[in-house]
Amino acid sequence: MPTREETLETRGYAMADAPKPGGLYRPVVLHDGVAYLSGMVPFRSGEVAYTGKVPSAVSVEDAQKAAELCAANLLRVFAREVGPLDMVEQVLKVTGFVNADPNLTEAHLVMNGASQLILDVLGDVGSHARSAVGVATLPLGASVEVEMIVAVSK
Amino acid sequence: MPTREETLETRGYAMADAPKPGGLYRPVVLHDGVAYLSGMVPFRSGEVAYTGKVPSAVSVEDAQKAAELCAANLLRVFAREVGPLDMVEQVLKVTGFVNADPNLTEAHLVMNGASQLILDVLGDVGSHARSAVGVATLPLGASVEVEMIVAVSK
Amino acid sequence: MPTREETLETRGYAMADAPKPGGLYRPVVLHDGVAYLSGMVPFRSGEVAYTGKVPSAVSVEDAQKAAELCAANLLRVFAREVGPLDMVEQVLKVTGFVNADPNLTEAHLVMNGASQLILDVLGDVGSHARSAVGVATLPLGASVEVEMIVAVSK
Repeated sequence: MPTREETLETRGYAMADAPKPGGLYRPVVLHDGVAYLSGMVPFRSGEVAYTGKVPSAVSVEDAQKAAELCAANLLRVFAREVGPLDMVEQVLKVTGFVNADPNLTEAHLVMNGASQLILDVLGDVGSHARSAVGVATLPLGASVEVEMIVAVSK
Repeated sequence: MPTREETLETRGYAMADAPKPGGLYRPVVLHDGVAYLSGMVPFRSGEVAYTGKVPSAVSVEDAQKAAELCAANLLRVFAREVGPLDMVEQVLKVTGFVNADPNLTEAHLVMNGASQLILDVLGDVGSHARSAVGVATLPLGASVEVEMIVAVSK
Repeated sequence: MPTREETLETRGYAMADAPKPGGLYRPVVLHDGVAYLSGMVPFRSGEVAYTGKVPSAVSVEDAQKAAELCAANLLRVFAREVGPLDMVEQVLKVTGFVNADPNLTEAHLVMNGASQLILDVLGDVGSHARSAVGVATLPLGASVEVEMIVAVSK
């Protein structure tokens, strides 16, 4: 059976391409068995791979890929900053912000891209509570931003 | 003295009409005495009862009713997924997302509809921290989405 | 070495000017060593000091000042409601909502105003996970709203 890291790699997400930490905040803060992961945009090799509003500039289908990439980034950041993905005891909450035109009604479908990847990689412990909303704009013009709260085995 | 469930029923929120769980995420995740409840839209009998932007399509007063319905749904989901509402030790945080026209300045007043119901049903332990924001769009065109973090007695 | 409160005062944020609690929710809920602070807008002496959208009505630079004021308010509210700022064991998560025009791409830069103040006042324990998004509108037309989750020493 593949490790969780191997599953991510097989899906095309090399562990080494975890986004670098940025300026004035930390990618993860771990306290008392709970890890708070900072909002993540769809970085790939240091560039934001999906920018612009959904659905006028980016289709719902592509936005799902963007959400998947955000989730893969969060898992890779966890692995670099906290430890092996086997330490994920339970994903508690995932929140997705979609850079949306005011008429979008599918923010939840966009976020399925993130949810499915998390379930594929982590299995049962990837099962999470979730909120999905459409926002006016995101940092760097990203199409999606995803944050996560994770219970970590001590 | 009525139970918390009876109070909800008296207000018109039948316990049996808790929204069904949807696709790729869980309605609640409980870990170490803290329950994370997924973002909830104003479902009533399986339909979204309030759709469109506040205030152009839905008045602030109606949006308050939508927020109340979201809160009632969250409490009913808690009762179905976790246990009797007597297990609520303390509501920790309520976050409200209002599907807003860019000129709305009353997102906090909209969310009072949710806060008041929670206080009415749960009393002192319903007293919560809160954020209210106006977003560009919500899943299914819902007018309001509310999420909640709750401390649960062990 | 100045106390954390003295550092705030030196930066122009008098401890006595912490915003008053509002209506139907609490400024902070503390449970099991974790404090959830309600979303805070840039109140100064009872008035919202920065209103309107970023960047059309308020520049990114001024919005950074608004975010700093929100953060100062959160720390002052903590001091009034929970106890001395020495009780902050670790800032876990900061979420910033910027009242944004749809073309803003600098929500993260706006939030640096909040992050820098928190680091300046709290030092290492102020280092936090963060999300920044641009929303359609905020309560009272505020330009920025910031919420925070804090680990508190028992």
